[in-house]
Parts: sequence; C-alpha cells; structure tokens
Amino acid sequence: MKPWLRKLGAALLALGGLTMAGTVVAQQKIRLQTAVPTASIYFELMKRYADRVDKMSGGKLKIDVLPDGAVVPAFEVLDAVDKGIVEGGFAWTHYWSGKHAAAGLFSNPMAGAGAGLDQLSHMAWLAEGGGQALYDKLYSDVLKVKVVGFMLQPMGPDPLGWFKQPIASVEDFKKMKYRSPPGITGEIFKEMGVSAVALPGGEIVPAAQRGVIDAAEWIGPADDVNLGLHRVWKHYYLQGLHQSTDVGEVLFNKTWFDKQSPETKEMLRTAAMATSAETYVFNIARNAAALDKLKRDSQIVVHDTPADFFPAFVKATNTVLDRHAAKDAFFKEVLDSQRNFAKTVVPYWTKINALYTNLGNAALQEKK
Amino acid sequence: MKPWLRKLGAALLALGGLTMAGTVVAQQKIRLQTAVPTASIYFELMKRYADRVDKMSGGKLKIDVLPDGAVVPAFEVLDAVDKGIVEGGFAWTHYWSGKHAAAGLFSNPMAGAGAGLDQLSHMAWLAEGGGQALYDKLYSDVLKVKVVGFMLQPMGPDPLGWFKQPIASVEDFKKMKYRSPPGITGEIFKEMGVSAVALPGGEIVPAAQRGVIDAAEWIGPADDVNLGLHRVWKHYYLQGLHQSTDVGEVLFNKTWFDKQSPETKEMLRTAAMATSAETYVFNIARNAAALDKLKRDSQIVVHDTPADFFPAFVKATNTVLDRHAAKDAFFKEVLDSQRNFAKTVVPYWTKINALYTNLGNAALQEKK
Repeated sequence: MKPWLRKLGAALLALGGLTMAGTVVAQQKIRLQTAVPTASIYFELMKRYADRVDKMSGGKLKIDVLPDGAVVPAFEVLDAVDKGIVEGGFAWTHYWSGKHAAAGLFSNPMAGAGAGLDQLSHMAWLAEGGGQALYDKLYSDVLKVKVVGFMLQPMGPDPLGWFKQPIASVEDFKKMKYRSPPGITGEIFKEMGVSAVALPGGEIVPAAQRGVIDAAEWIGPADDVNLGLHRVWKHYYLQGLHQSTDVGEVLFNKTWFDKQSPETKEMLRTAAMATSAETYVFNIARNAAALDKLKRDSQIVVHDTPADFFPAFVKATNTVLDRHAAKDAFFKEVLDSQRNFAKTVVPYWTKINALYTNLGNAALQEKK
Repeated sequence: MKPWLRKLGAALLALGGLTMAGTVVAQQKIRLQTAVPTASIYFELMKRYADRVDKMSGGKLKIDVLPDGAVVPAFEVLDAVDKGIVEGGFAWTHYWSGKHAAAGLFSNPMAGAGAGLDQLSHMAWLAEGGGQALYDKLYSDVLKVKVVGFMLQPMGPDPLGWFKQPIASVEDFKKMKYRSPPGITGEIFKEMGVSAVALPGGEIVPAAQRGVIDAAEWIGPADDVNLGLHRVWKHYYLQGLHQSTDVGEVLFNKTWFDKQSPETKEMLRTAAMATSAETYVFNIARNAAALDKLKRDSQIVVHDTPADFFPAFVKATNTVLDRHAAKDAFFKEVLDSQRNFAKTVVPYWTKINALYTNLGNAALQEKK
C-alpha cells in the first residue's frame, strides 16, 4: 500500500463521518424523556420515531427513549428539555397549563375550541391555519423556554366514560358524581351542572367501590382496561367532548437542535409527520380491538351519548373559554385563531363526518 | 500543504459522497412521472415529497416531479416505472383496474369495501390490518411488475355531486341521468337502479348544457370548480360513497430501489408517511375554503344526501363486489381481508364519526 493511501485511511477514521459539505457529523446519542410508562402505546410510537431517525441517519443519530421518571417526573419534562438536562422530551401541551392556561388549547382544545374542530380539522389548524406559528410563540415568547417542538400523535377522542347505570339525558348525567380531569375541563363540567370530582387515575376504582363516584372518564378502550374500570361498571359511552382532540408533542432543546445539520433537522421534522400518520391508524386499530374484546369478555354495553349532551357541553365550553380569553391576551389570540379557522372548516367537515357515520351504520345494518 | 494531504483532498473529491459504512452515495437525479397536471394539489403534494427527500438526503437524491404526459400518458405510469423508463411514478391503483379488478380495492374500495371502512380506517387496514402485504403482492405476484410502492395522499371522499334539482330519496335519484366513473363504480350505480353514464371530465359540462345528463360527480369542491360544474347546476351533495376512500401511491422501479442504501430507502418510506399526514389536513383546508367560496360567490345550496341512499348503495356494492370475488381468488383475498378488519373497526369507529358529527352540528347550532 502506498504511504499516502495508508494515511488517507487513517485520516478518514480520525474524521469519523465526514460529508462532502464539510460538516463533521459525528455519531450522537441523545436522551428523550417521555411522560409515559414503557407499556404505553405512546411510548411504543416514540420508539418507532427514534428507530426511523436512526435508520434515516445511517445510525448517526441515536435517540434513547426513556419512560416517565427515568430522569425527571412527567410534569418536569418541559423544564428538563429547556435546561438541557435531556436533549429531547415527549408530553402534551396541557401538561404546561399551570404555566399558562393557553398551553392546553394546542394539545386538547375542549369540544374543538367550542367551535367544532375534530381531531383531523384541529391538525389542519396546526398545519394550515396558523396553529404552528402560535405553538412556536407559546415556547419562544410566552413561556420563554429554549425548546423546539413538533406536534404528533393525534390520539383523540377520549370517551365520556363508564357509568353505573345508563343515562338518557343531561338531566340524568347531572345526578351522577363524575370523575373528570382537573383544570378547564372540570370547570366546563361544573358550568353545565355536572358534579365533577377531580381524582387521580389510581383512586378511581377504590372511589367507585366505596360509592363515592357513580361514573368516571379515563383515556380510551385500550387504556381503560388497564385501570380495571370495566370490572366496576358495565355501561360505556365512547362519545365525550372534554378531550375530543388529543395531540402529543416531541420537544428538543433549542441549543442542541440549532447545532444540527439541515439534514438532521428535516429528519426530525419529517419523522414527526410520519408518526402523526401512524398514530391515527394505530389508535383506531388498538382501541377497536380492545373494545371488541371488552364487549365479548365483560359483557359491557356501549351506548350512544344522549343527544342533548353535545349542545350543552359546547355551550358550557364557550362560556368557560370566553372567560379565560377575557383574562389573557395570548389565550384570546389562540382561541380566536382556532374559531376563525373553524368557521370555514366545520361546515364542510361536519358533512363528511356525517357521511362516514352513515356509511358505518349502513354497513353494520347490512351485515345483520 | 503536505503531499499526502493534497492527495487526500483529491481522493475525497473523486469519491463523491463517501460514508463511513463504505457505501458510495453519489448524487442522483431521478424522474418521477405523475398522473396529474402541475396545477393539481396532488402534484403540489408530490413536489413537497421530493423536497423533503432532497433536504433529508442533503441534496444527494433529487426527484424531478413531472406532470401527466411529460414522458408517458397517465395510464402508462405503472408500465413506465416497471420498465425503468422513469425511476418513479405517482398514480392510483384503480388506474390499473384494467390489468386486474382487485387493484381498485387498494386506492378506492367502494363504500369502504361494502363494510363501512372510512378513509382513516382504510388507512388503518393498510398499516395494521394486512393491507400493505396484499398491496406488495399485487405488484410482485399478481401484476408481476418490478415496482415498489408506498400508499400516500388519502384524499377521500368524493362528493355525490351536482344536481339540476334537489333529490329527496333514492327514487328521485333514479329519475336522473347521472355521470359516474366507469368500471365497478358504474356497475354499482346500475345495480341500485341509477341511470349511470360514463363520460370523461371534459364532456360533463357540454353534456349538461345539452340536457343529456341531469347530474354528475367529479372530484371535490377544490377541483369541481375548475370544471365549471357550479355554473351549470346549483345543488351540491357532498356525501357520496362511490369513492369514499381515495388513496394515491408513489411507485419506484424495483431494480433502482433495491440498489439504494438503507438510509435512502427509509427516507423514501418515511417521507411517504409524512405526505399522508399532510394530505389529510391539506384536503380539509383546501376543500373547505373552496366550498366556502362557492357558497358565497355562486349561491350554491349544499344538501344532505337522502338517508336511504346509504343502505341502498352499500347493498348494491356488496352484490357487485361479491360477484367479482366469486370470479377471482385474489379479489376475494383482498376483499375478505378488508371485511374482516372492518368487523372489529367499524363498530368502534362509527361511534367516533357520530361523535364528531354531533360536535360539529352542536357548534354550528351554537354559533347561530
């Protein structure tokens, strides 16, 4: 071997991954702390996200996906990413509602911002209706954190939940002691006259067994089973509005992100979009399978939510959201943007949702 | 400069993009011929796809997206990719229905395979219900073409269309001379007793003006306007079932694809998933804006499709699809897979579509 060729080999080894653009792209391993346990389907989807980035980068960017508590507790993920304790995070913006009430409007606008945006049309607001810019503003200007985020994992909707006996109307619902999440969601239930109690997940079943509550919402068929709610009550209402949209986010420390090559930045962004596509179908398949099993094994009865629930909840939502908007300019800015987008989108998209409802019902009828 | 260092520089230049894995990744420019004109939103989305791959690959893979006719006509895209006349293509599997009737079940299963799969649950079938493997089999074993495909661009549903006067029932619909697409769709309309006429897009308006037809379906609000259908008729029915799902595909020549690095293959796959996520929201935003403009500028009236249309169309679809399944084993295999997946998914997902319909209607009511 010629001496210069031997030296070429040594130089290449020393340089690590050298691209023609002259950027040194050394192998990186970063930590991404999620707000969920490893058993969660949210965790599984983030592992797939990391795998995609790994493959596209030819192994040059390894993302170590960590469960809740591995480095910090779930509610500290944003701060940990901001401070660079971990390079990445996964959570939901409504986890930061304590820092600013408007945060929740991105991951979980109740009843579609009171304006009827469903899961897909909320995602359309983010991508095509100005939502992404407001989401960026939330972090850069409002919360003033050094974080870059991409919204992904559209997982809505959460069911109205489990009931000890059927309800035929909002009047019946009002007679129930109902476990709901805290915050704005709780305010809305109270506004419509429902006796809502905020309890952590682990206390739902014991409270139900003691007769302290008569009904409870949790997450969805695939997750409600883990809590054992189907063993306490048999009446299930899939159609709730308090979390009709539910979108997660992947966060990166901005100082770290800004140092990445344009190729890596685009991979992180494109992989997030790919995860969104994957989440829709994952969500349908997993929840449908869980519900099917529930109906067969536990003889649960799936009811339609009473028709008068929808206008009552939407009305109460608007009252509560307007109250928050009157107190805070950024809350108002986000809400106005969503409602403005809804004005054009909801009249069209509601017809399409009605079409698919009719299609499904006709097929179920035909099968009988 | 030391001689060996100069030689190192020269050697690097000669090698082009050299990665540490030892794979030579020279810059490539390939052609991707679509089945649509440059003005189409499908074309725009494929340009974004190419842009994403370009950025992620650091400019090493440039995809030149070409309109219908640039190299071959739309209906020859599959053959052109198979033969390597172009490296890539964009079209729909129902364009290959003439080669095999089952092809259409991937891009456009009528009335959700007669089993109620909507756009999202059809995508769930592809990803989680065995659809992707059958799609691969369509190309490798059934059509025997050297093609690798990724389904993307979920654009459903197509409206029932434009009518000279309102219809209150299937009986009223049967009195109309109706322009429909050819093939299985036409068979289904005839099976349910509708006088369907197959006409190319360009002949719809002249035929309407001569009174040869009384109603016609085309693509959707954003595209129907291009054809001028709103100038001929004022009654619009958004809710159709003949193309309730509509998914495009990006195709690559298999010999070319197999030569690519694992990184490039993953970029092409992930970018396709990202395009799916983008298409859902693009479709909502663009069609909603077009419909809004139509209602304001052209005083068109948007009606709900008569309730008895849905069971009648689903029944006719099953009759026609069963007829095809009885004649061909692969058609039966695909259809059985879809119907089997629908058994679990449709009972759950129909409740969610009903929820979003109720949400939208409650919000529209609240606004009044």
